[in-house]
Amino acid sequence: MNRSNQQPIGIFDSGIGGLTVAKALQKNMPEERFIYFGDTIHLPYGDKSADAIRYYSIKISKFLKEQNCKLIIIACNSASSTAYEMLVEFFEGEVIFVNVVDPLIKEVIRRGYQRVGVIATKATINSSIYSKKFKVHNPEIQVFEVATPLLAPMIEEGFYNGNISRKIIESYLSNADLEDIDALLLACTHYPLIKNEINDFFKGKVAIMDSIDVVHQEVDQLLMDKNLKSYRKSGEDLFFVSDYTTSFENTARIFYGEDIKLSAIHIWGNI
Amino acid sequence: MNRSNQQPIGIFDSGIGGLTVAKALQKNMPEERFIYFGDTIHLPYGDKSADAIRYYSIKISKFLKEQNCKLIIIACNSASSTAYEMLVEFFEGEVIFVNVVDPLIKEVIRRGYQRVGVIATKATINSSIYSKKFKVHNPEIQVFEVATPLLAPMIEEGFYNGNISRKIIESYLSNADLEDIDALLLACTHYPLIKNEINDFFKGKVAIMDSIDVVHQEVDQLLMDKNLKSYRKSGEDLFFVSDYTTSFENTARIFYGEDIKLSAIHIWGNI
Repeated sequence: MNRSNQQPIGIFDSGIGGLTVAKALQKNMPEERFIYFGDTIHLPYGDKSADAIRYYSIKISKFLKEQNCKLIIIACNSASSTAYEMLVEFFEGEVIFVNVVDPLIKEVIRRGYQRVGVIATKATINSSIYSKKFKVHNPEIQVFEVATPLLAPMIEEGFYNGNISRKIIESYLSNADLEDIDALLLACTHYPLIKNEINDFFKGKVAIMDSIDVVHQEVDQLLMDKNLKSYRKSGEDLFFVSDYTTSFENTARIFYGEDIKLSAIHIWGNI
Repeated sequence: MNRSNQQPIGIFDSGIGGLTVAKALQKNMPEERFIYFGDTIHLPYGDKSADAIRYYSIKISKFLKEQNCKLIIIACNSASSTAYEMLVEFFEGEVIFVNVVDPLIKEVIRRGYQRVGVIATKATINSSIYSKKFKVHNPEIQVFEVATPLLAPMIEEGFYNGNISRKIIESYLSNADLEDIDALLLACTHYPLIKNEINDFFKGKVAIMDSIDVVHQEVDQLLMDKNLKSYRKSGEDLFFVSDYTTSFENTARIFYGEDIKLSAIHIWGNI
């Protein structure tokens, strides 16, 4: 297959949280065209089994490949943790995959943090992806992984920057495992919306890091290396969801920071 | 098809919340055998579109029919609201269906409440099922429906009977629409677990009602009418889920009140 620099970049997530990643990419790479797919019919992936997430990821990647994407970003930590290697192998030579875990790991190592906390959904924490990856790259780094499953629905339902979110965040972050960390990784694409509140909890003493600050650099470098970078935008960005409700469209605004039109697309058989 | 009184009763829900209904039935009808199906791979239904919920409900009902169930209880308000009539029509003459909405409506009318609040997921509230049904049975009754989408994940993640749940419950129930109600319907199978907290919020001045207190009477009556009541239990109860994780099994204990064994069953194609 011949790839050209005018092909779009695909982005997928279990739902609309990945729009924080889409927004960061669109801002940093205005010359690229993006096609987003939110698997709202299966959201949230954070509670699903690894095999279920792998199956969804293959099917969505096939759809994005058919949309002619040159590169696909797995804008979901649960899918990045459980499906990335399988996707690379499955679509070898056909599409480039970028996950949201590796760029963050690299940045932590570059900055020299030694005691690193990770908060995420159950699927991501159960995969132990962060401790496994740090072990490979730098076994000196101590990793403390804590599942914080109520944070994603809390944010989706609009509970952030308030009294309730503060209490829930406090309850999770008071975990003794996170007492002496020097950096905390927000390993869920929803969490950038509560970055300030988390920073307040740690009174600025812990570096709060998320992948939306670093993924675009990884994507840029990969496209550069393969001579696939676009130099003028070739069309409108598109936003697909596997299940449409007006409530998703309202929530999409929270994550993308502006109004977008979601289009329902039925890649899952009868529905 | 010949139905016999030794056939099991099917119960389904989007996940494990419906186990509160299963437990109430098992306690009140110890001579019946139950087969439970929790569609954990698609949970929560509360955020899904009506068509998606209808499709899931047909497929699950077909599975339960193949398990030889004489009657199927839709132990989920979102599915009861969007799929009940379609299921009755689709399986006409083959299986008896019971939803969790109608028995509660009947009980409210029997008790003579006039200003009735309803709290539930977005799918149930968007269906306006409660106001529509009350309009038919007694147009005098005023209905105030409020979506409370964070309550189900809050309970699933173990946040109840505590400071955080109190704040979230307060935030939802302070809604001006619920100011002068005389009864509040807990229209989600998760909510019985926070019945006491809700009662505390209203200081005992509002009747807090849920379907688990009344569904078994409806089921009993229907089986009696059709001469299908069992008089001795014919085997063990079974609990199936469409996606298995240990976390689901732990949460199942919360809703069922005792340990149960969940078995994964793949009714959704490849996964």
